[in-house]
Parts: sequence; C-alpha cells; structure tokens
Amino acid sequence: MTLTLLGAGNVATHLGMALQQAGHRICQVWSRTETSAAWLAERLGCPAVSGMEARLLPSDGYIISVKDDALEQVARCFIPQAPEALWLHTAGSMPLDILRGKGTTRIGVFYPMQTFSKHKTVDFSEIPLFLESPADMDVLQELAHSLTPKVYQLDSEGRKHLHLAAVFACNFVNHCYALSARVLKEVGVPFEVMLPLVDETARKVHELAPAEAQTGPAIRGDRVVMARHEALLQEERMREIYHLLSESIHTTHD
Amino acid sequence: MTLTLLGAGNVATHLGMALQQAGHRICQVWSRTETSAAWLAERLGCPAVSGMEARLLPSDGYIISVKDDALEQVARCFIPQAPEALWLHTAGSMPLDILRGKGTTRIGVFYPMQTFSKHKTVDFSEIPLFLESPADMDVLQELAHSLTPKVYQLDSEGRKHLHLAAVFACNFVNHCYALSARVLKEVGVPFEVMLPLVDETARKVHELAPAEAQTGPAIRGDRVVMARHEALLQEERMREIYHLLSESIHTTHD
Repeated sequence: MTLTLLGAGNVATHLGMALQQAGHRICQVWSRTETSAAWLAERLGCPAVSGMEARLLPSDGYIISVKDDALEQVARCFIPQAPEALWLHTAGSMPLDILRGKGTTRIGVFYPMQTFSKHKTVDFSEIPLFLESPADMDVLQELAHSLTPKVYQLDSEGRKHLHLAAVFACNFVNHCYALSARVLKEVGVPFEVMLPLVDETARKVHELAPAEAQTGPAIRGDRVVMARHEALLQEERMREIYHLLSESIHTTHD
Repeated sequence: MTLTLLGAGNVATHLGMALQQAGHRICQVWSRTETSAAWLAERLGCPAVSGMEARLLPSDGYIISVKDDALEQVARCFIPQAPEALWLHTAGSMPLDILRGKGTTRIGVFYPMQTFSKHKTVDFSEIPLFLESPADMDVLQELAHSLTPKVYQLDSEGRKHLHLAAVFACNFVNHCYALSARVLKEVGVPFEVMLPLVDETARKVHELAPAEAQTGPAIRGDRVVMARHEALLQEERMREIYHLLSESIHTTHD
C-alpha cells in the first residue's frame, strides 16, 4: 500500500519503519512541527510537510498517530483532503467514533500494543495489533498481517479495557520496579541486583496464569513478615500501597 | 565442599542441584517428612533422613532451607550434632541472629534472590547471592562464587530491605499482571496478548532506571484518561489500587 503518516512520535516512527520494511511505500510524513516531520521523513526517505495548512499527497491510506487530545482536530482538518482513502488512528484509548462525521466512512483503528521508546528498536512481528473498522476490515487485516501474525479484531469497548489492562501490566508494573529501586537505594544496593528476579517474574507468566504464579508473604497470609515490611517503609503512601496490594493478593481467587 | 541440606522445598531443591553441578558433594537430605526428604535425596543420589530425632551425617557445611517459622526450631535441634561445621540459612527475610546461641559461632546467611518453582529449572549463574557471616566469609565467598559471579555481602538490616524490595519487584508486579488479566477477561481477551508488553516492560529497566522508564497516563498527568479508566473498574478495590498507584506515579521524582 501507499501510506501517509500523520504524526512523528514514537508510534509513528516505529510503525513507519516497520511498514516500509514490510514493503509498503510511505509517501509523506506530516507533523505539526517542521522539525519532527523532517526528522522522521529523512529516516523514511520521503517528503515532509507540516502545520495545519499543509497539503497532503495522495495515498491509499493515512495513519494518524498523534497525541490523544490532538487526534480529533487532525482528523477534521485533513480527512476532507482525501475522503476516498482509508483513514486510521493508532490510539489504544480512543474510540473509532473520533474519526466519524469527518467526511469519510472509510475509517479504522490500527492499534499496536507496545511501549515504544524513540531510540530503542522493537521487533514488530512480536507486537499484537488490534483492529477495528466498519467497512474496511479486509484491507486492515492484510496490512496488519504484513507486520505480525498477532492480529486481533476488537471493538472500541474492548479496546478501552485492553488499554486499561495495559496500564496494569506495564505502567503499574514499572512503578513497582521504581518503588523497589527506592527501597534498595536506602541501603545502597543498586537496582540491577533485582533484574534476574524481574526477568523471571515476567517469564513465569508465559507458562502460568498470573494468579497461579503468585508467590510471597501476602499469598501465604504471612502476617508477621507483612507487618515487618510495613514497619520498614518510611513513607506513608508506600505503606498504603504495600497494604492495599497485599490485601488484594490475599483475597484474589481468579 | 561436602554439604547437607536441611529442607526439601523449592530453594533446597534448586540450590542442591546447582551445588552438585558445581562439584560439591551433597552428603544427605533431611526433611521433616520422609516423602519430601526421599524425593529430593533421590534426585541428588544421596541418603535421606527425616523427623526431629534424625541423626545427621558429618559434612563441612549444613544448609537450612525451611519455612521461616520452622527455621529456629530446626537450627536449635540440629546444630548441636555438628558444632564444628558451618551452618547456613537461605531465608531472605530472616536475620543472621536466628542461628546465634544454638551451639556454634560458625554461622552465616546464603540467600539466593529468585522466585523458584519446583518444576521450572533456573540458571543459578544468573541469580544474585547475598552473604552474611561473622567469621566464615571466606568460605561463603568461595562457595557462592562456585555458583554465580553475582555475589554480594549484605547484613541482616540490608537484607530486610532487599526482601521488601523483592516483594515490590516480584510479588506486586505479578499481582499487577493478575489484575491486568482480570480486566481482559471481562472482554474475553486472553492474557497472552499482554506478553510482548510484559517482556518489553521488564527489558526496559535493564537500560533505564525504572523512574525514567515510566510511561502512561499517570506520569503524563492525563486526568481524562485516568477518570475513564477508573469508571471502567467495577470493583472498588481495583479502583483504589488504580488511584493510589497513579497518584504515586504522578508525584514520584526519584
């Protein structure tokens, strides 16, 4: 397919590179600011364009990967330039409807669920893609399968839950790492000592359901150890987190 | 070294196998119950013995890997049979002092920090070992280095913090996975879709400090998304967890 990227952030960057590698042609990169558009366009070897007054080149599909709160404005502004093309957004937390009533019915969601960092390459074939489209599911399926075998159809309601689930499995997990690092810092131990345990904890849930993989004082109901741990925590909020998560572990039977 | 294992649970099993593979000789396995002692002794090709009246064979060192609340009783009961030998325990959450006053000063802690499951092999060379001993640190260092290069000295106070940090980085992380699975279950999505994100989240903290690796609505201060997420959560405790962790992320500057 010939594709245009609207946005030049982490998702647009990694998606653009992966699409190009899969044999699609990126015709143009648009971004609100000239420098980010130029940066990504250079990496992809295509023209850049910027600003809300920009003229887009024709292509089969347009992929909008901008911040959630800019999505509607970008869609309203640019869809009328190519109402025959397929318009997609990549936002896990935004409904399909954000693209409705903007001048086309050829709309869809193309959500790669991963945490992207600009300078860290990712293997797209490992990333699950979640698709939604009222009229173009065939095209979306083909596009998605050119990147990864992990393709799922999911409506906006399901995707809301998926995004929430990702907050637990990624953002909150990372915060638990951060709290762990804070505890270690008090006794001068570097967080790197935790990495084998971090890795094994992640590996385990490839084989066991998370609820079955649970270990530690809370699941054993070991109140002595838990009380000792809470007493070690200086900050009230860390004590609250310890207490709440321990109670939740102890009473969870999934 | 010639070594005796007291205990036949997950830690004793994995440690016993690793020590044997590193060239040490396991002389005997003791356990409270005959069946568990026999099970591990058979795997290690050595005699089993059980019960609190058991006679232990002589060896250079004795490693006690029993439940925290049984540790003191096992130490008190068996140390007098070999007061010249080195006596170690493997419990992250127990102080060295639990072995004091039991008839020997040759005591120490040999704590492998990992989450062990009985039927899952682990690579001991990846596991950090934390050592403490008033008089036998040389012997402990040599024993530890025969298993892994990741050897640290840490006193009981430091180890308390380490164990608490491991609860955050392992037990609470796993519970976040479990809560994520629960959210997905509501929309019929299998937890396996989360695994690439789980793996990448763990990989990231090999390169970045956890606080720097933080992504998601809470760190961005995106109150709109957070309110939408909280509204999706049916259970009050899950809402509380969402709220508390989000607040903690938002105000954390490590």
